[in-house]
Amino acid sequence: MTVLVFLDPAYPDGRPADAGVPALMINDLGVTRGDGIFESLLAVDGVPRKPDAHLDRLGSSADLLDLRIPERAAWERAIATALALHAGDAGPTGRAAVKLVATRGVEGAGEATAWVQVTSAPDNAAQQKDGIRVLLLDRGYDSLAASRAPWLLLGAKTLSYAVNMAALRYARANGADDAIFTSSDGKVLEGPTSTVVLATERNGVRTLLTPERRSGILAGTTQDALFRAAEAAGWELGYGPLVPEDLFQADGVWLASSIRMLVPVRSIDGRGLPFSETLNAELVKLADAAL
Amino acid sequence: MTVLVFLDPAYPDGRPADAGVPALMINDLGVTRGDGIFESLLAVDGVPRKPDAHLDRLGSSADLLDLRIPERAAWERAIATALALHAGDAGPTGRAAVKLVATRGVEGAGEATAWVQVTSAPDNAAQQKDGIRVLLLDRGYDSLAASRAPWLLLGAKTLSYAVNMAALRYARANGADDAIFTSSDGKVLEGPTSTVVLATERNGVRTLLTPERRSGILAGTTQDALFRAAEAAGWELGYGPLVPEDLFQADGVWLASSIRMLVPVRSIDGRGLPFSETLNAELVKLADAAL
Repeated sequence: MTVLVFLDPAYPDGRPADAGVPALMINDLGVTRGDGIFESLLAVDGVPRKPDAHLDRLGSSADLLDLRIPERAAWERAIATALALHAGDAGPTGRAAVKLVATRGVEGAGEATAWVQVTSAPDNAAQQKDGIRVLLLDRGYDSLAASRAPWLLLGAKTLSYAVNMAALRYARANGADDAIFTSSDGKVLEGPTSTVVLATERNGVRTLLTPERRSGILAGTTQDALFRAAEAAGWELGYGPLVPEDLFQADGVWLASSIRMLVPVRSIDGRGLPFSETLNAELVKLADAAL
Repeated sequence: MTVLVFLDPAYPDGRPADAGVPALMINDLGVTRGDGIFESLLAVDGVPRKPDAHLDRLGSSADLLDLRIPERAAWERAIATALALHAGDAGPTGRAAVKLVATRGVEGAGEATAWVQVTSAPDNAAQQKDGIRVLLLDRGYDSLAASRAPWLLLGAKTLSYAVNMAALRYARANGADDAIFTSSDGKVLEGPTSTVVLATERNGVRTLLTPERRSGILAGTTQDALFRAAEAAGWELGYGPLVPEDLFQADGVWLASSIRMLVPVRSIDGRGLPFSETLNAELVKLADAAL
């Protein structure tokens, strides 16, 4: 079952709508221009995970797009309404995917269209255990583009995801499951729908690493939650810049995202990576407890 | 009045729908991922201009996105149906904007959502006569990215236009009307919704120039139609690479697009450009006759 709740000033707790019938105008700038933002977050047994981190990032994306969206409390109430309507339908895992979307609205209206959608989350236990194959794909931008060209919207989670989807199709058509983008100047960036996390152990010091955010990547909420939990458990933390060889030299590489959580990368461009079931289980547990 | 006609196998001439009520599913990949393509073409007195060029480019965009869309004849019939429904409502200029859209469809359905929308075209006679101010904005990509990274979808006219819209907002917030993108290696690319055209006269030889397409820009249908008409009228033609200084050294610069047609650029980054009313009128007439 898909639950749909629009944010609507006339309905303080959100306006539920039938997700099975058309609900969007054909000239909404979200579809005609991909002009809008979104977040995907996990809910377990009806409780959203790290909602503050997602609402913070939604707000940052809105700022980067100069987009006026409903206030945070309206989102919180709409999420609660949607999760209540979805209760009992989350399946055996109790896990639901909550999507928050805000578009620039119907052409000329000057008012955002905003909604919350809840569906059952796909079960990816097998992928989390067995891992995935990844291709490195050039994102075209250099790692300094974000700082000099704000109109490129790097760091905003926009609805204009055609390139991300094309990268996934390219990876799948070429024997892999997912992709990791690199910058044109050779830095590791992020996955099309995930953040890259590396683990290393050197002389007894265990470190988690992720690419530096100023290279124009999204601020990963799952990576961040994992890092905070890992730090509390005694891990050191590091933030790029990283190059592809760092991936191969690590003791493990993961893709982190809110719905799939942590997925271990077993090969990159066909070259096998180190993998430890124990370490994988430890990090998955840390991430799961932290969220 | 906005006319909406869906392409639908059950309706060979297209299925008219009320454009004033919601007609799109909330989980159409066109909105959730900006995953789709479009074309905008002009119709004058109910007759579409250069429909073949637009349908060719729609097909090229679909190929680049690996997107299966309805066959050309179905588009032609839906366009005819939409223009017939819009007849009498095109206003005093008789000019209508025809938008063709195809998305990857509702998540999981595996079938494109496709429609034709017709609205009255805005009157831009003043802009065509008086011209516009433009900023040069870095597009982030180098001019070779298109050839090495097909997943970047350079050259496809996708619904993921958030960056194009952000560039226009940036230009307007900074004292200009429009933008011209440059590559990170300093080449002139295109406008966010237009093709760049330059005119030069050297030793009695008149030449029209435009950036080379392999630099990852859209194939401009209006620029192409103008070039064919100009060639027949005795102009020489040239295709980049071009650098910003070429714009300042030209005898005139225009932005070409299907609805706005040819618009003269009067300044770039605040620096005035040569402008001849006679030359502008001559090129506008050539473009108009050719379409």
